[in-house]
Amino acid sequence: MQRVDGRKPEQLRPVVITPDYNKYAEGSVLIEVGDTRVICTATVEDKVPPFLKGLGKGWVTAEYAMLPRATGVRTVRESAKGKLGGRTMEIQRLIGRALRSVMDLEALGERTITLDCDVIQADGGTRTASITGAFVAMILALNKLVEQGMLEKIPVSDLIAATSVGIINGVPVIDLCYAEDAAAAVDMNVVMTGTGRFVEIQGTGEEATFSRDEMNRLLDLAAAGIHEINQVQRQVLGDKLAAAIGQV
Amino acid sequence: MQRVDGRKPEQLRPVVITPDYNKYAEGSVLIEVGDTRVICTATVEDKVPPFLKGLGKGWVTAEYAMLPRATGVRTVRESAKGKLGGRTMEIQRLIGRALRSVMDLEALGERTITLDCDVIQADGGTRTASITGAFVAMILALNKLVEQGMLEKIPVSDLIAATSVGIINGVPVIDLCYAEDAAAAVDMNVVMTGTGRFVEIQGTGEEATFSRDEMNRLLDLAAAGIHEINQVQRQVLGDKLAAAIGQV
Amino acid sequence: MQRVDGRKPEQLRPVVITPDYNKYAEGSVLIEVGDTRVICTATVEDKVPPFLKGLGKGWVTAEYAMLPRATGVRTVRESAKGKLGGRTMEIQRLIGRALRSVMDLEALGERTITLDCDVIQADGGTRTASITGAFVAMILALNKLVEQGMLEKIPVSDLIAATSVGIINGVPVIDLCYAEDAAAAVDMNVVMTGTGRFVEIQGTGEEATFSRDEMNRLLDLAAAGIHEINQVQRQVLGDKLAAAIGQV
Amino acid sequence: MQRVDGRKPEQLRPVVITPDYNKYAEGSVLIEVGDTRVICTATVEDKVPPFLKGLGKGWVTAEYAMLPRATGVRTVRESAKGKLGGRTMEIQRLIGRALRSVMDLEALGERTITLDCDVIQADGGTRTASITGAFVAMILALNKLVEQGMLEKIPVSDLIAATSVGIINGVPVIDLCYAEDAAAAVDMNVVMTGTGRFVEIQGTGEEATFSRDEMNRLLDLAAAGIHEINQVQRQVLGDKLAAAIGQV
Amino acid sequence: MQRVDGRKPEQLRPVVITPDYNKYAEGSVLIEVGDTRVICTATVEDKVPPFLKGLGKGWVTAEYAMLPRATGVRTVRESAKGKLGGRTMEIQRLIGRALRSVMDLEALGERTITLDCDVIQADGGTRTASITGAFVAMILALNKLVEQGMLEKIPVSDLIAATSVGIINGVPVIDLCYAEDAAAAVDMNVVMTGTGRFVEIQGTGEEATFSRDEMNRLLDLAAAGIHEINQVQRQVLGDKLAAAIGQV
Amino acid sequence: MQRVDGRKPEQLRPVVITPDYNKYAEGSVLIEVGDTRVICTATVEDKVPPFLKGLGKGWVTAEYAMLPRATGVRTVRESAKGKLGGRTMEIQRLIGRALRSVMDLEALGERTITLDCDVIQADGGTRTASITGAFVAMILALNKLVEQGMLEKIPVSDLIAATSVGIINGVPVIDLCYAEDAAAAVDMNVVMTGTGRFVEIQGTGEEATFSRDEMNRLLDLAAAGIHEINQVQRQVLGDKLAAAIGQV
Repeated sequence: MQRVDGRKPEQLRPVVITPDYNKYAEGSVLIEVGDTRVICTATVEDKVPPFLKGLGKGWVTAEYAMLPRATGVRTVRESAKGKLGGRTMEIQRLIGRALRSVMDLEALGERTITLDCDVIQADGGTRTASITGAFVAMILALNKLVEQGMLEKIPVSDLIAATSVGIINGVPVIDLCYAEDAAAAVDMNVVMTGTGRFVEIQGTGEEATFSRDEMNRLLDLAAAGIHEINQVQRQVLGDKLAAAIGQV
Repeated sequence: MQRVDGRKPEQLRPVVITPDYNKYAEGSVLIEVGDTRVICTATVEDKVPPFLKGLGKGWVTAEYAMLPRATGVRTVRESAKGKLGGRTMEIQRLIGRALRSVMDLEALGERTITLDCDVIQADGGTRTASITGAFVAMILALNKLVEQGMLEKIPVSDLIAATSVGIINGVPVIDLCYAEDAAAAVDMNVVMTGTGRFVEIQGTGEEATFSRDEMNRLLDLAAAGIHEINQVQRQVLGDKLAAAIGQV
Repeated sequence: MQRVDGRKPEQLRPVVITPDYNKYAEGSVLIEVGDTRVICTATVEDKVPPFLKGLGKGWVTAEYAMLPRATGVRTVRESAKGKLGGRTMEIQRLIGRALRSVMDLEALGERTITLDCDVIQADGGTRTASITGAFVAMILALNKLVEQGMLEKIPVSDLIAATSVGIINGVPVIDLCYAEDAAAAVDMNVVMTGTGRFVEIQGTGEEATFSRDEMNRLLDLAAAGIHEINQVQRQVLGDKLAAAIGQV
Repeated sequence: MQRVDGRKPEQLRPVVITPDYNKYAEGSVLIEVGDTRVICTATVEDKVPPFLKGLGKGWVTAEYAMLPRATGVRTVRESAKGKLGGRTMEIQRLIGRALRSVMDLEALGERTITLDCDVIQADGGTRTASITGAFVAMILALNKLVEQGMLEKIPVSDLIAATSVGIINGVPVIDLCYAEDAAAAVDMNVVMTGTGRFVEIQGTGEEATFSRDEMNRLLDLAAAGIHEINQVQRQVLGDKLAAAIGQV
Repeated sequence: MQRVDGRKPEQLRPVVITPDYNKYAEGSVLIEVGDTRVICTATVEDKVPPFLKGLGKGWVTAEYAMLPRATGVRTVRESAKGKLGGRTMEIQRLIGRALRSVMDLEALGERTITLDCDVIQADGGTRTASITGAFVAMILALNKLVEQGMLEKIPVSDLIAATSVGIINGVPVIDLCYAEDAAAAVDMNVVMTGTGRFVEIQGTGEEATFSRDEMNRLLDLAAAGIHEINQVQRQVLGDKLAAAIGQV
Repeated sequence: MQRVDGRKPEQLRPVVITPDYNKYAEGSVLIEVGDTRVICTATVEDKVPPFLKGLGKGWVTAEYAMLPRATGVRTVRESAKGKLGGRTMEIQRLIGRALRSVMDLEALGERTITLDCDVIQADGGTRTASITGAFVAMILALNKLVEQGMLEKIPVSDLIAATSVGIINGVPVIDLCYAEDAAAAVDMNVVMTGTGRFVEIQGTGEEATFSRDEMNRLLDLAAAGIHEINQVQRQVLGDKLAAAIGQV
């Protein structure tokens, strides 16, 4: 089987993470996964949402958006429509949950970290690129807090990265570009830790179904790919910083 | 291990489906899963969304809501807030996708079936109860179209039902009630067909992660439970109607 | 004259009130008036709206909604539209005013009682059924406060119930079902107390007018019907509770 | 009993109607009822709402608003809040219904008349002043259609005017100013035709109730007052125009 | 060149300012500039926006709206649309900035003055008429504070007035009526003080451009016209009050 | 006088324009003016707004937004707030007007060009950078239409660029960065053509005023700076393309 861009089924697109892409944010990256490009910024604020007030715990949340021409056909802005769409809400809830899964919220203290993931160009896999990039932006912001003496160490227990897998013409493939995504019978987003545990699995058959065996093959592909992406994250963060994660 | 309501880990709560609960809808049920109660109505309209105009295909979509006192503490109405929350959007997208997975949209013709799932009382598992109930309401509505000669046969290839599974204190359990849901480290919603294929898997660790082995045990539990729920659906639909499904 | 459902002009449809329909609400009923079905829940909260802060008084308010298939043709959800319609606002203001007319707000103390009236099935008279049912739900909630020692007695001076009357083909009739409502030249909603005093009269000629004499005949019909409805309320509340009302 | 502004119980405030107050509208008046001042404009458009398309009938509708300093304390604009309040919706629905009651919608043809009632200064009775003024503005606009040969005659069967009545310290009074309105136990708005038939009666006890006898005394007061207001309307419209009404 | 209403290029329309047009507002005027009519009210409140809390400074802000039939064709209400348009926001921001330019916000103290400018009839120049009128309403309100001993003197350093200028068929003209505005290649709104300093210049070529020389001729026209308008303002305010301005 | 970043009063920050920054848009640039960075994309669609339907003319419009961390303190998304702020509306209207001033809308035909200006990082002058960049993106998109034979030539009569000028501590300066902007008494945005004609002048004194002489000095500064910016635009567009502009 030949993929549209010549990749092998198990081959990721190139992943490039540029740290400190924004001069104002406490942490930031530009992440590129093939032609998909997302700016991720991490903002640290000394406040928590109402439901956490006075509990001595922090919070991690995310917002996601696409520029109108991130896509082939111009998308109407959600600010102009006056409301967020279901897809946007679903994605930003996913990013937030994924990052919270490895965060020690007590150790973070009464702070909120907001990850803004703004898609500059979309060629499939924007939500998984957002998770992978937002994780790095978050660690950069936390490291700043450590350097400023606000935190003793980075209160994160493991790496987090994500990718998509799917079945196209019966073949399980990884990291679907937009053209593949549109053609896939089954589409699965997988978020995993650096030690290979699952954080989130969202497998869905749009007008199709899948067997347990197919699911297992997709998870094998995802696990291998996420392991590769972790290496890119480690490189950007540097040995010292990467080592600090998980040593809570 | 003792569950809060005395059930065994693999034991479902009683599932009761009352058909034709509403005198106006083309199909309707009241589904009760323990203390969770959802009214599901199926509306058939001779129109399709703009993106399907002129393609000769139909559409299946869903809306989900909770009455203010479906919950222990009164929830503010989304109509009063002026917008749908992220959770609501996520759930109604899930229900729609699940039902479309077994529907032959070409055979349905230029019609839209809207499944309204209104939670009267919520004790955990409202989204999976909605899927299970909405499937039956949809079949009842389709059967009416067959009886009226609008369709030759029910254009559905398999049964659809759903349940939740999760890990509580390290033990995988099925069909979590609200108190269990709040305590679960991992929460997974599984939608399957009558022939045991997956339609949707949404596994998520809120401030936690899970291993591949744990995932497998959860899927085993879900598969067995959904098989049981299918029996309730078949009973409500009756032999003849149940037999008609999948004979496309 | 023959009414569409065979009733006599002065004959109400059967009124059935099922108390404690919801396991979470402080008070709740399912009220059925013919095929009209409304779930009414009463929520008690220890707070008051801003305009009453610090005045030592309580408040009673109501919200009203219809499920999409409460009606013959599916109604778009107001949550999806992003705003409440004029009819909804008018009705929920009416229900609130009606219940406040017999409530001793000082004796209630700094509490708000919210009556949620959700129409499951609509066959005319949903607003008057809501008032009749909400009154019972409110008394059940207040009784719980008395039993818990939060209130000395039920701070309500009289029963409240409502019905509709109208003129069809020149004949005054009571408790119009949907088909009659659509055909009526004059439509009047009447809210009265158990001792026969008026709380609210809303008479309106849609593309028609009515004489003083016609109005008097409508009010006679309404008074007799409301007296009957009061008997159903008394039966549901039980002798002891019914007796407690008005003994402030 | 002494009323706050020295009037007798049955005495109206001076009613002044200035026709053609706006140079653009097809019909317009400034109506002053004491210190209450409302600009009413009638707009004629060659279109009807969707539910009337192709039925050969017209429509009459109304919108109502208050300038921020129409009131003693500045009111936040509904445009700034982003939604209409319940009171506004209730009032504009009332005005529309009242005017439609005497309009021959078939004779009007496929046209919509929109009455905009903007309260410049509010001292009680703004909704009834709006109805009284909007009726005159509507007739002026219809007369223009007659003069232009678009209509054969004014398709209105009777005069429409409105006033408020209420009970203050046990005394029934007419045309309550703001200070009286706030003190009234019972408040009733009455809309009547020039021949003394009712169009709308909205009587309401806010935290109070009223007897049938009290209601009768209020309606007597209202009927006499509306008869007086009709004279002002006739004077503004002139003999010829006033005569044309009701000769359909 | 002949202007549509017979004026000379440098000739203003008659400016009439009626003070105390509203009985509730702390300051109010009706300003008429030809057929353009705006009600301006000034509301004084003892509070400031959040960004000024605790700084001992006050604020001046403005809101602007048009009645639906202020215009030849009925405009849909922004309250009905649920949001303010860009033009409205632009104008109300302009009015607020213009008035703040001469206000000593420290001397005003922790108070907010809100200028509501409601256009009753629009025939061009509504934003500049609003500024001219709102200035007078504001001074009237401030004078009331002085009279009540809340302020020692009027904390305003100069008069403020505004007019429009534009180029029609190559000829610079002042105070464009609606028909001229629609035909103008260049449109400029100028706000100036009584001593001839600029507060705001907004010159714009809609589908056109203009030279520096043209701009200079427009500013000469505007300066002369605003000087005339200042005389009307002084007359309305009276010698004593006019003298008080600028004597901070 | 020493500016905060060491520039001379008449010195611009470096302007860098990267063309074809986005792979989907018909035209696109990344424009950097010092630390201010804006992505401008031009979308061509074969449709026009309702008010131009059937007139054989095209339209040019713009939308403007800032990423949440474009600024030092995180800004809440307008999509989350559910409405556009006044500043956003004002800016996007300005950008649209500026570009339309040199466009031959008849020659464009029934097409709409939408310029999306998304601020990635904001350090003052975002609206003027947006205009300068959007102009280049628009020419790139128009050139594509020419190359595809859809247009005979680029229907634009002149270059468009913009900058800000202001008065800080009494000294007129050009191209204010954020720190200067906050300190300026007068702030003026100037849009000019390549041949030195004005398109838009927006000069405003926030809590200050300015003399005619000061205005003249600001306009001199702006004219010189815009001339420099035009050179950068010409370089990006290349000799051939730059020459094509204005040869309509």
